[in-house]
Amino acid sequence: MAVSVFEDALLGPLFRDPVTSSAFEASRTVERFNRVETALADACAAEGLVSRESADAVTNVLRAFAPDPATLASGTARDGIPVPAYVAALKAAVPEAHRSAVHFGATSQDVMDTALALALVEVNASLHHRLRAAAEAVRKVIGTWGAAPIMGRTRMQAALPITFADRGAAWLAPLLDHDERLARLRGSVEALQLGGPVGNRAGWGRRGNGVARRMGKSLGLAAPAPWHTRRDALGEYAAFLSLVTAAGGKIGQDVALMAQQGIDEAALSGGGGSSAMEHKRNPVLAELLVTLARYNAAQLGGFHQALLHEQERSGIAWALEWTTLPPMCAAAGRSLDAVSALLSAIERIGKPA
Amino acid sequence: MAVSVFEDALLGPLFRDPVTSSAFEASRTVERFNRVETALADACAAEGLVSRESADAVTNVLRAFAPDPATLASGTARDGIPVPAYVAALKAAVPEAHRSAVHFGATSQDVMDTALALALVEVNASLHHRLRAAAEAVRKVIGTWGAAPIMGRTRMQAALPITFADRGAAWLAPLLDHDERLARLRGSVEALQLGGPVGNRAGWGRRGNGVARRMGKSLGLAAPAPWHTRRDALGEYAAFLSLVTAAGGKIGQDVALMAQQGIDEAALSGGGGSSAMEHKRNPVLAELLVTLARYNAAQLGGFHQALLHEQERSGIAWALEWTTLPPMCAAAGRSLDAVSALLSAIERIGKPA
Amino acid sequence: MAVSVFEDALLGPLFRDPVTSSAFEASRTVERFNRVETALADACAAEGLVSRESADAVTNVLRAFAPDPATLASGTARDGIPVPAYVAALKAAVPEAHRSAVHFGATSQDVMDTALALALVEVNASLHHRLRAAAEAVRKVIGTWGAAPIMGRTRMQAALPITFADRGAAWLAPLLDHDERLARLRGSVEALQLGGPVGNRAGWGRRGNGVARRMGKSLGLAAPAPWHTRRDALGEYAAFLSLVTAAGGKIGQDVALMAQQGIDEAALSGGGGSSAMEHKRNPVLAELLVTLARYNAAQLGGFHQALLHEQERSGIAWALEWTTLPPMCAAAGRSLDAVSALLSAIERIGKPA
Amino acid sequence: MAVSVFEDALLGPLFRDPVTSSAFEASRTVERFNRVETALADACAAEGLVSRESADAVTNVLRAFAPDPATLASGTARDGIPVPAYVAALKAAVPEAHRSAVHFGATSQDVMDTALALALVEVNASLHHRLRAAAEAVRKVIGTWGAAPIMGRTRMQAALPITFADRGAAWLAPLLDHDERLARLRGSVEALQLGGPVGNRAGWGRRGNGVARRMGKSLGLAAPAPWHTRRDALGEYAAFLSLVTAAGGKIGQDVALMAQQGIDEAALSGGGGSSAMEHKRNPVLAELLVTLARYNAAQLGGFHQALLHEQERSGIAWALEWTTLPPMCAAAGRSLDAVSALLSAIERIGKPA
Repeated sequence: MAVSVFEDALLGPLFRDPVTSSAFEASRTVERFNRVETALADACAAEGLVSRESADAVTNVLRAFAPDPATLASGTARDGIPVPAYVAALKAAVPEAHRSAVHFGATSQDVMDTALALALVEVNASLHHRLRAAAEAVRKVIGTWGAAPIMGRTRMQAALPITFADRGAAWLAPLLDHDERLARLRGSVEALQLGGPVGNRAGWGRRGNGVARRMGKSLGLAAPAPWHTRRDALGEYAAFLSLVTAAGGKIGQDVALMAQQGIDEAALSGGGGSSAMEHKRNPVLAELLVTLARYNAAQLGGFHQALLHEQERSGIAWALEWTTLPPMCAAAGRSLDAVSALLSAIERIGKPA
Repeated sequence: MAVSVFEDALLGPLFRDPVTSSAFEASRTVERFNRVETALADACAAEGLVSRESADAVTNVLRAFAPDPATLASGTARDGIPVPAYVAALKAAVPEAHRSAVHFGATSQDVMDTALALALVEVNASLHHRLRAAAEAVRKVIGTWGAAPIMGRTRMQAALPITFADRGAAWLAPLLDHDERLARLRGSVEALQLGGPVGNRAGWGRRGNGVARRMGKSLGLAAPAPWHTRRDALGEYAAFLSLVTAAGGKIGQDVALMAQQGIDEAALSGGGGSSAMEHKRNPVLAELLVTLARYNAAQLGGFHQALLHEQERSGIAWALEWTTLPPMCAAAGRSLDAVSALLSAIERIGKPA
Repeated sequence: MAVSVFEDALLGPLFRDPVTSSAFEASRTVERFNRVETALADACAAEGLVSRESADAVTNVLRAFAPDPATLASGTARDGIPVPAYVAALKAAVPEAHRSAVHFGATSQDVMDTALALALVEVNASLHHRLRAAAEAVRKVIGTWGAAPIMGRTRMQAALPITFADRGAAWLAPLLDHDERLARLRGSVEALQLGGPVGNRAGWGRRGNGVARRMGKSLGLAAPAPWHTRRDALGEYAAFLSLVTAAGGKIGQDVALMAQQGIDEAALSGGGGSSAMEHKRNPVLAELLVTLARYNAAQLGGFHQALLHEQERSGIAWALEWTTLPPMCAAAGRSLDAVSALLSAIERIGKPA
Repeated sequence: MAVSVFEDALLGPLFRDPVTSSAFEASRTVERFNRVETALADACAAEGLVSRESADAVTNVLRAFAPDPATLASGTARDGIPVPAYVAALKAAVPEAHRSAVHFGATSQDVMDTALALALVEVNASLHHRLRAAAEAVRKVIGTWGAAPIMGRTRMQAALPITFADRGAAWLAPLLDHDERLARLRGSVEALQLGGPVGNRAGWGRRGNGVARRMGKSLGLAAPAPWHTRRDALGEYAAFLSLVTAAGGKIGQDVALMAQQGIDEAALSGGGGSSAMEHKRNPVLAELLVTLARYNAAQLGGFHQALLHEQERSGIAWALEWTTLPPMCAAAGRSLDAVSALLSAIERIGKPA
């Protein structure tokens, strides 16, 4: 038990996704703040909004900028976000003559949202690989056991005999399509947010789009119009994460049903032990896959409640995003790993000889 | 008050979407069953699985087939779906010599899911037009009031002055992108389902894909591999419906905030009356837009719980889809109409002169 | 397919709850408006706020008041609620000299919310009986098959032998407790709402509490302080409805698992037919029970989003309640009936002899 | 950004509830495992199921038992729960002659669920105090500003003047009732779970109820019949947690609306700073309260999906509980603290003089 199963020392070993945990770790977030401010200072210099000398003074500090975590923490407690305290600390670290080049024209949301986009670059790169690995794991099971006769079951009743290849095809296809979905979505969520205080890029005069283009390029992000209050790309991405866990959930549910005594259409190596019954082999990963699918489905409902960003910035909806998106990434990543692990533990499909 | 606000005589005038109500009306569903069975019989004949004569006998009956609603109703009460009773009635109406050509190789889910796809053709065609109309309504407001100065507000506090064009841009952009999303999604949800009893098209031998291709062509649907247990396309589509209502909800929330006395940055003509206060003009449509957004967000969470179709057919998950998808379509359609109506009632944006 | 499965001609026979459908039918709602206005006029007369003669003039009209549905419908389209049009029609029907006694001091929400409370009286009376009937059905199955040995299964794996009485006890206990919960909750949701335009009963001067007490008495409702913006009683009640469907869902899920071929620990008479496979007997009601449980769980998440009523009346949150609560009642009622029907169809528990 | 905002170093200062974090901390969970096993050994001895000497040998070890966290972690990775590894380590630490007295008759779920109940004792004791503190904070604001005239607003439009006491009453009443709800619910969720492998207490013969009674007494928990598969008490409790955050959300939403420039009916001291605009004072806590309410509402929908525990133990549903309940506790605790803090920062209610 822990506030978050994705981070708890006791339950984390079941739920934790190391990739997501790493991507959203606080010190990594601060590094991304540094990257964003570096890109901003450079772009503002290139666009002639600040002097190259001032920009260099800022980026020099940022190269190894590690503000006191306690300062950031008390900043969040006061401001609701760590960025104002971060920017204040950064300004304090930059020689006074160059201070006005810090955070030039920008606002906290620009830093927070762009840092999120950079975190998603990491998460997505890994999801891509893990979608392929999970698909490969399904293919391998089909390769080995595809010809095995199993009973086709509809509405939980025996219908007509099929082969495992039939059922396996329904496991495989979504994983392949999810990888295509991901490729498409990366273009929209791995995107710079740059808008300034009220989101209209007014702080950079006519150079706003130029600053954005340059920042996008140096950060490896798309540079669309500001998305400070339109979160549809994130909403679509959250749905994708739930589709990923649903693909895993279908596999897990089917395996758990196949592994029932009396059905006996699948055998797993390993499997969970019981504190009371020596003989039991619980299909822990199969169950986990269903849990993660139901978890993400519920979170998706919550995330879409966060799509309503009123006026030019919603503290309410924005914070609701933070509560929900990282756990959904973790569930998706963990689900894909669990698919691979579960399938590699399959020792038999079809009735025992 | 009614079981469904989308159909109630008292509250329906606020919530009802005539397009969705018509598309999902029971008699229309039966007409679609007829279309599916007609396409099936024709395709089976073309593929040489049944005789042309038998197929003609079937399609002749289907031309004006209207089974007794009470028979279908008691069929649903018994079987959980109306299709077995429908097929039985159809067989009874076809001369015995040709009866084996009815529903050849197919299963109830093929008929239900394909009928759903045909309903979505109607819904989607209308959503496309209404997305464009809503976008046009936003453009018109920007055209008229874009230069009006309003206060940019972040975290519900005055930040810096902007023009309405700035805020309006955040209303418009998602609507345009949603229309693109819809165009893409139509290819995946306007799709024939054809699988037979256990979803592997075994009942048509090697002609299954040919039957599917022909049916898709005659019904105007894509003809992908069976999707009887993979519902990711529907899951993605449900998320799209929630994105649509969220776009409306943002507009409604902003308008309601702008219309507050003391803020006075928008004036609406008409507006809802009160039974107690003559002077009030309630921003009814603005509020409705937020309600619909929160409704669809919650339904989306429910719909994604339905993505887990175990084995070859899940009566549980399938029925959960039925509870949720049509109301989501209705909310999306109603939202777009309400955007257009609300914006056409705007009499002023910006402080009164 | 229909916008609402609870009302569709084709799918309704599976989902429809006649008690809820009747309780929330539009004409019944109008009758309740009449009852509320009658009680209000009488109470205002008794408290000396309007003359007895005027009150009698009003209640005389109300005895058979049936305003034109089209008028109410267009009222809702304009005002977001039917009450202003209803009150206008009522005033028009009352002689001018007594008109000021109509809707005295009250506001639309008083009428809508109190009418809801009266609808819940009907729903709850029926849920009470159906909870007892469902419990009785479980008891009967335990009575007949309690000694039957079945395999105790944990994490979907065979664990240790139990008797059906063990499992049945877990079916029965929640139903009994839900009936106790209902008895407690009836006191809080079967409650008069009386607040006037801004919810503080100012329109009745110092007689507001007296008016409320009298109205509560004549309507058979509790008469607490105004609850126009505190909806916790409804939120708790919605959770109760979800607990009820969860109790049914557990039974349905267990029965569906027990009825699997290979497990063979339950046999059902009747059961759903298939359009493709003559031999199948689908456990339609067992599946429905799980569907209804998942449906209500999702709606509960939506209903709790509606708990935030800002200021003195939230058009947004209030309308969100209307979308969600009646379907939850219908799902709960249907679930209890389905429990009774499913259990009465059990022909065997335990392995066949 | 972090996987969990309740635990992140950067955002935790806004979201974290120290009471919940402490109650669910892993080392504390292990201490509770120790308490459960101690109570079990003692009760089994008292009931004559194990020797007093053996029980003492076990409880002696448990007095300072701190199994290697890495062992528990790899146990969870294998078994899905830490208890089998914990019990194995405990057995290894107990002299062989007394080993059979360890975990006598029990199963992992008994330990996990009872440890959860003990954690909830801590959480609930604190929620009780914080509900009272939040109510006191509301009373104080009413005491100071109750007579201040503000505009009563309905459907976000000015309606009629009220005093703040009117609005404040709607803030206060739910908090008082929630404290009563909590008192009632504590009796049902602060409850021993004792069932053994398949939940029927068979492992203790006729002494099962006696063992349970004794354990309940020594642990300070109720000792009802096993609730291994009936989770309605938890489902009701989760709804309570959402009601608590909703009460806070109403206050936060109202304060945020009152603090708008142009409305100016509330002034707050402190408040969040902006990285771009020196003059801004963002109502961070007011927004947080709404976020937490929407978060818990969404989690509640997820938690009720976990109410379906199939057969004698559902690995799926059980794990879904773990993902959701501790964050809901944290949100409720944080919400109450934020209510108190927000209200203590109120410097003015009503228009400025």
